[in-house]
Amino acid sequence: MKGLAMLRIGEVGWIEKDRPSCGSRDAIVKPLALAPCTSDIHTAWEGAIGERHNLILGHEALGIVDEVGSGVKDFKPGDRVIVPAITPDWDSEAVQRGFPSQTGGPLGGWKFSNFKDGVFAEFFHVNLADSNLAHLPDGMTLEAGVMLPDMLSTGFLGAENARIEIGATVAVLGIGPVGLSSIAGAKLRGAGRIFAVGTRPAAVKVAKKYGATDIIDYRNGNTAEQIIEATGGAGVDAVIIAGGGAEILMDAVTMGKPGSVISNVNYFGKGIGDRDSIPIPRAGWGVGMADKDIVTGLCPGGRVRMERLAEIVTYGRMDPSLMATHIFKGFDTLKEALLLMKEKPGDLIKPVVLLDQ
Amino acid sequence: MKGLAMLRIGEVGWIEKDRPSCGSRDAIVKPLALAPCTSDIHTAWEGAIGERHNLILGHEALGIVDEVGSGVKDFKPGDRVIVPAITPDWDSEAVQRGFPSQTGGPLGGWKFSNFKDGVFAEFFHVNLADSNLAHLPDGMTLEAGVMLPDMLSTGFLGAENARIEIGATVAVLGIGPVGLSSIAGAKLRGAGRIFAVGTRPAAVKVAKKYGATDIIDYRNGNTAEQIIEATGGAGVDAVIIAGGGAEILMDAVTMGKPGSVISNVNYFGKGIGDRDSIPIPRAGWGVGMADKDIVTGLCPGGRVRMERLAEIVTYGRMDPSLMATHIFKGFDTLKEALLLMKEKPGDLIKPVVLLDQ
Amino acid sequence: MKGLAMLRIGEVGWIEKDRPSCGSRDAIVKPLALAPCTSDIHTAWEGAIGERHNLILGHEALGIVDEVGSGVKDFKPGDRVIVPAITPDWDSEAVQRGFPSQTGGPLGGWKFSNFKDGVFAEFFHVNLADSNLAHLPDGMTLEAGVMLPDMLSTGFLGAENARIEIGATVAVLGIGPVGLSSIAGAKLRGAGRIFAVGTRPAAVKVAKKYGATDIIDYRNGNTAEQIIEATGGAGVDAVIIAGGGAEILMDAVTMGKPGSVISNVNYFGKGIGDRDSIPIPRAGWGVGMADKDIVTGLCPGGRVRMERLAEIVTYGRMDPSLMATHIFKGFDTLKEALLLMKEKPGDLIKPVVLLDQ
Amino acid sequence: MKGLAMLRIGEVGWIEKDRPSCGSRDAIVKPLALAPCTSDIHTAWEGAIGERHNLILGHEALGIVDEVGSGVKDFKPGDRVIVPAITPDWDSEAVQRGFPSQTGGPLGGWKFSNFKDGVFAEFFHVNLADSNLAHLPDGMTLEAGVMLPDMLSTGFLGAENARIEIGATVAVLGIGPVGLSSIAGAKLRGAGRIFAVGTRPAAVKVAKKYGATDIIDYRNGNTAEQIIEATGGAGVDAVIIAGGGAEILMDAVTMGKPGSVISNVNYFGKGIGDRDSIPIPRAGWGVGMADKDIVTGLCPGGRVRMERLAEIVTYGRMDPSLMATHIFKGFDTLKEALLLMKEKPGDLIKPVVLLDQ
Repeated sequence: MKGLAMLRIGEVGWIEKDRPSCGSRDAIVKPLALAPCTSDIHTAWEGAIGERHNLILGHEALGIVDEVGSGVKDFKPGDRVIVPAITPDWDSEAVQRGFPSQTGGPLGGWKFSNFKDGVFAEFFHVNLADSNLAHLPDGMTLEAGVMLPDMLSTGFLGAENARIEIGATVAVLGIGPVGLSSIAGAKLRGAGRIFAVGTRPAAVKVAKKYGATDIIDYRNGNTAEQIIEATGGAGVDAVIIAGGGAEILMDAVTMGKPGSVISNVNYFGKGIGDRDSIPIPRAGWGVGMADKDIVTGLCPGGRVRMERLAEIVTYGRMDPSLMATHIFKGFDTLKEALLLMKEKPGDLIKPVVLLDQ
Repeated sequence: MKGLAMLRIGEVGWIEKDRPSCGSRDAIVKPLALAPCTSDIHTAWEGAIGERHNLILGHEALGIVDEVGSGVKDFKPGDRVIVPAITPDWDSEAVQRGFPSQTGGPLGGWKFSNFKDGVFAEFFHVNLADSNLAHLPDGMTLEAGVMLPDMLSTGFLGAENARIEIGATVAVLGIGPVGLSSIAGAKLRGAGRIFAVGTRPAAVKVAKKYGATDIIDYRNGNTAEQIIEATGGAGVDAVIIAGGGAEILMDAVTMGKPGSVISNVNYFGKGIGDRDSIPIPRAGWGVGMADKDIVTGLCPGGRVRMERLAEIVTYGRMDPSLMATHIFKGFDTLKEALLLMKEKPGDLIKPVVLLDQ
Repeated sequence: MKGLAMLRIGEVGWIEKDRPSCGSRDAIVKPLALAPCTSDIHTAWEGAIGERHNLILGHEALGIVDEVGSGVKDFKPGDRVIVPAITPDWDSEAVQRGFPSQTGGPLGGWKFSNFKDGVFAEFFHVNLADSNLAHLPDGMTLEAGVMLPDMLSTGFLGAENARIEIGATVAVLGIGPVGLSSIAGAKLRGAGRIFAVGTRPAAVKVAKKYGATDIIDYRNGNTAEQIIEATGGAGVDAVIIAGGGAEILMDAVTMGKPGSVISNVNYFGKGIGDRDSIPIPRAGWGVGMADKDIVTGLCPGGRVRMERLAEIVTYGRMDPSLMATHIFKGFDTLKEALLLMKEKPGDLIKPVVLLDQ
Repeated sequence: MKGLAMLRIGEVGWIEKDRPSCGSRDAIVKPLALAPCTSDIHTAWEGAIGERHNLILGHEALGIVDEVGSGVKDFKPGDRVIVPAITPDWDSEAVQRGFPSQTGGPLGGWKFSNFKDGVFAEFFHVNLADSNLAHLPDGMTLEAGVMLPDMLSTGFLGAENARIEIGATVAVLGIGPVGLSSIAGAKLRGAGRIFAVGTRPAAVKVAKKYGATDIIDYRNGNTAEQIIEATGGAGVDAVIIAGGGAEILMDAVTMGKPGSVISNVNYFGKGIGDRDSIPIPRAGWGVGMADKDIVTGLCPGGRVRMERLAEIVTYGRMDPSLMATHIFKGFDTLKEALLLMKEKPGDLIKPVVLLDQ
């Protein structure tokens, strides 16, 4: 079968591999819709997860079940499914501790295009099908559905972890597709005023539709100062970090009130200095005593998460398809879609590839 | 000054009283908008809080500050304010334990028309003005604002206590103004599917606008059975009780999944039998072991709560004025509005009295 | 193989059955120590789970692994293990929702002596061995260890669910082995004053060792009144129900402060009246508005839970062997031990059967 | 009256000041027992809170009420009281948001020896006496009681914020009196294994009595590596930071499991580099995605907190007097006690000054 792979750091191309084999509780799935993720760019061109050879990329997919193992009960060939980016080993100890995304080690629930082949292939393997697949509801468009596996799940997590009270004021740093989903997530948790920090016009437009009430342009000055001023000196109740470099906590922590939560769903690809560290501002953090919690998490995966996200779409609570700005058709367009994600033109939020199945 | 009072159980009328005097940290407020509450009906005609003589009724008001004590910093005569139904003693021990609505004893944060005169008067007294008043934002209509002191605060609490996860399925029992606010609250916390149990057409219409996806008519059979069937046997993740008699837990507990929350904001005016009790269904409760929590609370009061609710309205997250179905003008119409609340015609959700100030 | 079974409601006896067969991820275990539970009495003589024929009883065991399936990684024949009473299907949806004891339906994590044969046999079957067994630490006595599978796990849950703050005042209703474990659990969560309600002298002695500061004798009057008086009218911050009949909530809810938690780990075998209900006191519950939450749960199972409980014993945080008042030796004494549990003489807390393996 | 004051940064001495005057809801208190805190050293000699002139130091005291304002109900002259280090303005907005230690701005609940005169005086002023004083229980020794206002409250907070599950493994970094209290607090929350990082023999001895099971000596190598090795590679469930410099998060975050909590109660007096920052290790933090939360707080104050801590002592849950290694007698010894705290000889945990009242 054909797959779009990271050949080595810095090089991406089509390869041929054997179709994966299916364990007794697993499934083999053919893609219906695929979306490249910024993580794919980090992985392939920046070496974010280290060197890999011929690793098939991709972890955002809808698909059609092609084969299931003998122990699979709830899915059968032909079923249309949502495939979460994170597919935990549900019988591992981290699940019992309450952290399914961390099974088998830090970030261990993330398997696709990390330590096994990803979904950018004619067929891909899903572990624990009954626990890690969800039925794609009739009537959900592919453009909407393919945002669930990672974008909505990660972005909403940013909001969920932020302990938002009804009517609270929230700042979302970054308005890529994860940041936009965090804005939508903040609204879904009951935020009142929502500051969105970003500038790209296509994203700004969606940010407003998703609930942002104030757009902050970092080119107009320090974002923490802008937001503190806009709130009459108070700062915000919660900050969601959905983008930014190693220095982003300097502003994020500063703009929070005493008692605020700084909720990170950003991938830190590079630290500062020899320590390879992410700095917290000592004064802005109240010398460590201002009740400003810095909380984190990895995209929740698994079946129930996907089913719940699907409910959000089914009942019209938000429309993820607004983020699908560029639609490609056919498996062969996948490389083009990936390269577009790498280039990030101004009108791009998310490219989506629809397949003929 | 004039006030509309409970003369004794079963009798309501206008009385004359002295204008209340203002403590050093308190305020005297003139009403701008008033709304009768079902609790006023319970109090006046059903003896819900016991016998009272010449107790001025009412606890839902917007107003204009007429006088403040010497220790009040943030409010001055002429300020337009939101007056929460619950005005805690913020320096009492229950606050330090985390339960401001319970200061000084069970339900002790509820003072208006309970153990002091209420807001249905030409002037009323607010304890701890800096902590218990909030500025009425410019541009908020009186019809919208007067829903905040009790309806939104209580209804939203039902949703907040229900520990709703994004995409969860929720049932709201009762679609009076509190139930409608619970529906809106459930949507604000991220619910997917929302069942609303009720029949009155005016309320059903607003329920849908506030986020209800399925209307359940109890005349079509047992509500627990209807909802369990509609969810394919699963039941719901959370139940909010916003109305109903002493037997309501029988259905509410039954329709919840193992692991669900049953969140009560209903006033139980009458119990069953000699025990004066509210029955939990033994089997439906999983013989006490199915992880179904029954949680409760009294309307949160205080300034910050009102400010946050105001943000919800200001930023268009929901429109409480949809519940103000009957608008009266002038202080003298107050008795008529109260009697309408008592009669509850089919097209009524909430009567509101607007004053000329 | 031989097993001690419920032949039908009201009749218990030895039977012969085939040795269970081992699935690929499962284990077959021989018992090292067994303990009868009050639930066994309810099951066998009171029909608590309905009619059963030749169902082997028992769910509290330590054992030696006799056989493992091909997919089991962490256990091998000869390993000494703790076997939790509750053995969830870790790949089921209730786990993803956060309720592993409720897999497959209400109380569905409870399999032994419920819908499959229990541990009172020469061999018994454990599903998902890697997830549901824990290694018995060297140096832990069998009398101590056999209290972990159910008594400690259930009793501690009562305390965990009670949201106890450091220094809070707690009441524990019932001082059977679960109640005693709840007392120890309340101390482990940081309770200050702990009221224990019960009278049996052997249990009273252990209650004090486990942290009870006040013993309340229900023969001296209504327990709620006694506890409210002893706290100067305040009531307690948390109530743990670890015993009592259908009416126990009447007192439990009454003795809690506004803002308290009533945490139930009691099995309700019988309800009241035609409704088969468990009554909440309307007034004591603050007419449903005094912030008194009634929370529940089923004994947590699984490997990590057992490992953590083992740490408590290993590091001397409490000594569960104090509850093992009656030690029997040899598999053949099991029926005698079970009958002793049924009789409940005054000096009994828990009978334990040690086996020669 | 006489007071021991910071004259300017680097200089401490006795001064004369007017006795403070008492507001209507306040109290004037004479000290019964006083304890210098490391914060006093930071304040006086390191300029931790900036320049101050003739600011009376001290925030740890027991006392006798000398005068109360007309509005004080629960205290009268002659009452023996516990005075919390943190005395919030209970009617401020931060309380309504749930953060009483942050009233009026970051760390604003901390008034004594911060922005008003402290307790190292013949008389000192306590705001909101009914809310911020607690009665000293009969039978509590002064050496024990004087540990409550700051040491126990801060140290326990470290444990409370760490979300410790029963049986969890915890590391406490630092074994000064706050670290020792965190160890005791971790035990009070149900920790199993507790690593204590420190070397001073007097403190090591108390650490073990308070529940530490493993003592880690940083002179034997990197503490994170030592603890990870001791846990078989797993790391710990929670880390409490109760001491250390700007780099302490580098180890603290690294030694936590995915899903762990890093709970800080350490004062960061100095940051790193131009950014004045506290570095988080990028890799150890799982590139921001390993569910490792960094949480903080300031010592909880107020009456209920003190009353609950007193219960811990009254019911023998832990004995804080073990930390009072050096007892001084008489107000005039206060400077000597403070200087001893500055010198920190090897056998010192905490000096205490007892007064003749």
